[in-house]
Order: sequence, then C-alpha cells, then structure tokens
Amino acid sequence: MNNSIKPVSLDKAYRLLNHGPTVLVSARHDGVDGVMAAAWACALDFDPPKLTVVLDKITATRVLVEGSGQFVIQVPTAAQLELTRQVGSRSLNEHPNKLADSGVKLISLGDQNLPFVSGCSAWLACRLIPEPHNQQTYDLFIGEVTAAWADERVFRDGRWHFEDADPSWRSIHHVAGGHFYGIGEALSRE
Amino acid sequence: MNNSIKPVSLDKAYRLLNHGPTVLVSARHDGVDGVMAAAWACALDFDPPKLTVVLDKITATRVLVEGSGQFVIQVPTAAQLELTRQVGSRSLNEHPNKLADSGVKLISLGDQNLPFVSGCSAWLACRLIPEPHNQQTYDLFIGEVTAAWADERVFRDGRWHFEDADPSWRSIHHVAGGHFYGIGEALSRE
Repeated sequence: MNNSIKPVSLDKAYRLLNHGPTVLVSARHDGVDGVMAAAWACALDFDPPKLTVVLDKITATRVLVEGSGQFVIQVPTAAQLELTRQVGSRSLNEHPNKLADSGVKLISLGDQNLPFVSGCSAWLACRLIPEPHNQQTYDLFIGEVTAAWADERVFRDGRWHFEDADPSWRSIHHVAGGHFYGIGEALSRE
Repeated sequence: MNNSIKPVSLDKAYRLLNHGPTVLVSARHDGVDGVMAAAWACALDFDPPKLTVVLDKITATRVLVEGSGQFVIQVPTAAQLELTRQVGSRSLNEHPNKLADSGVKLISLGDQNLPFVSGCSAWLACRLIPEPHNQQTYDLFIGEVTAAWADERVFRDGRWHFEDADPSWRSIHHVAGGHFYGIGEALSRE
C-alpha cells in the first residue's frame, strides 16, 4: 500500500462524496475485474454510511456487482482525466484489455477482496444492499460503506485539502460528452 | 420572469446536475412554501429525465413534497452561499419566517404551481414518483423532471459556461459543516 493512503473513519466517509465528484466504480467476480466511470453516485446516509450509484444494464461492471454483492467507489483526480474518459467510454464486453489499455493499475487495500484503482484520492469499499426493484426499474444500486481510505496528500483530518494540494489532485466533475470541470476554490464565510 | 431565464430542453436537463452541485429543494402544499438545502441530489435517468434526492424525516419540506407530489430542485450560486447555509440550518418547523429571514425570494416559472427560488442558475420542476419503501427506509425520493430552466448568463446552448461567467455564478459543493467548494475550471482534453 502506498504510504500516503490512510483509513478514513466511517463517520467521515460521506465527506469523500459530498461535493459531487465523478467516480470510478470497480468490482471483481469469478476472477474478472471491471472498472467504469459514473457521474451518478451520491451519498445516502451518514452512519452507517450508505451511497447510491446508477449502473446501466449494458455495463459489464454491473454484472460483477450483482454477482459478487460488493463494489468500490473511488474518486479519480485531474491527473486521471484521460483514464476516466477511457474507462467511461470502453466496455469490457467488447474490449477485454480495457483496464490495461486505459492505464488502470489495481491495488489492494485492507483485507478486502476488491479491485482498487491506483492513483485515486479516495476509496469506499461497499457491500451491495440488494433492492431488486430499484436495480431493475431505475438501474439504481445502494451500497453500505464498510471501509474507506484516502490519500493524505489531499484528504486528511477528516476533510479535503484541495486548496493546499497540487492541482493534479482536484476531483473532476463530468458535465457531458467527456467534458469535465475540476473542483474549485474553498468558499469562505462572509 | 427574469429575461435571462430560458427553458432547457428535457433531454439536456440532466446536465444541470451532472457535475454534482449542492441544490435547494423547494415545495408548496396547502399554502405553505418550504425551501431546504441538499447535497445529496443526483441525476438518475436521461429521458425522461429523473433524479434522486435525500430528504430527512425531520425536514418540513419533505412533508410538503409528500403532500403535493411535486417539488423543485434548483442550483444555487456562489452569490447565494449564505442563503444556502441559512436554509440548510434553519427549519420551517421552528422558524416560521425562515424564507424571508434567509433572503429567499420566490418567483414563478412557466405555468407550474411551485415555488422557484430567485437568483439560482437552474431549476428543475419534478413530479414525485411515489416509492414508499425507498422514502421510508432510505429517505430517498425519486422525481421525474417535467420542465427545466436555466439562466442563460451561465447555462446556454445546452451546457454550463462557468469559465466565461462571473465567479458569483459558480455552483457550490458542500463538504461538511457549512464549508463549500466552488466549481472550478474546465479541464481540457490532453
């Protein structure tokens, strides 16, 4: 494990997603690892922390989530813009070498049997809370966060430090068609 | 209606939320108008556009949403940071003059009988899709967007123009405890 990756306490885990970044979703099942990009992920509860993520029926990663009952939500950085675009536009179904060709390197965190994407700023390991009606009707998946980590170079003391970190650490926020905004400046109290 | 507020076609409505801003939720029922802040709102579908929003059981606005079956999700600006903090920390239940005291001015848009908050950058009128299990178990509400508008000074031609607009138009992204980041710069393709 990279020495700068530290556990985040579960009561602070929602803060990793609260500002609405685009995320990478990853899952592992039957020896297959999948990673996709998702703009539609959102915190759902504080304690125990839960989140929602929308996984289209055409995605290979969805099948891995349904098969294994677990997944990772991780926060890519501005340095990973091109990686995010590539895993967001290629499907493992048509592109078996998708991960390597998109520059994805997987790492392990804790004792989880889950694929974590190297170079991200934060990672939330999730247990799927099965809700078949939501999954089938809305492509909406609910996860309970069971463990979380962040890179202390940009998240420490329970909060983001985008304003002090190198700009390459900024979270990225997809608008449409591969166009993103980076997160901006901290807004001070008036 | 302010001359710079223009309709947004429904197929582009998801773009108003795709980058993960903190929003204001408003609703009207039995002559009562409520407005609250919510960081946990997220696009759910493209066409017809749908979205999710988490409404805690203690909020007065939730009762108005459940009673009327409709609500507005709107995107506040950096100029509305203090307004957003105030509607996010006061409850109409204990503070009957909450809206006026928080600086909220309501406007009408289209022929909707809904309270729209003046000064925001975008507005999505939503019909509640009743899902009692989600609402009760997760405080999770699903809406279908029936109409949308944006201020052309910051959203036009189907996309955000934060990079060209005055910084006071930037969307705000809550982290925790009344601390926000503004949205940042457009990230170019490499």
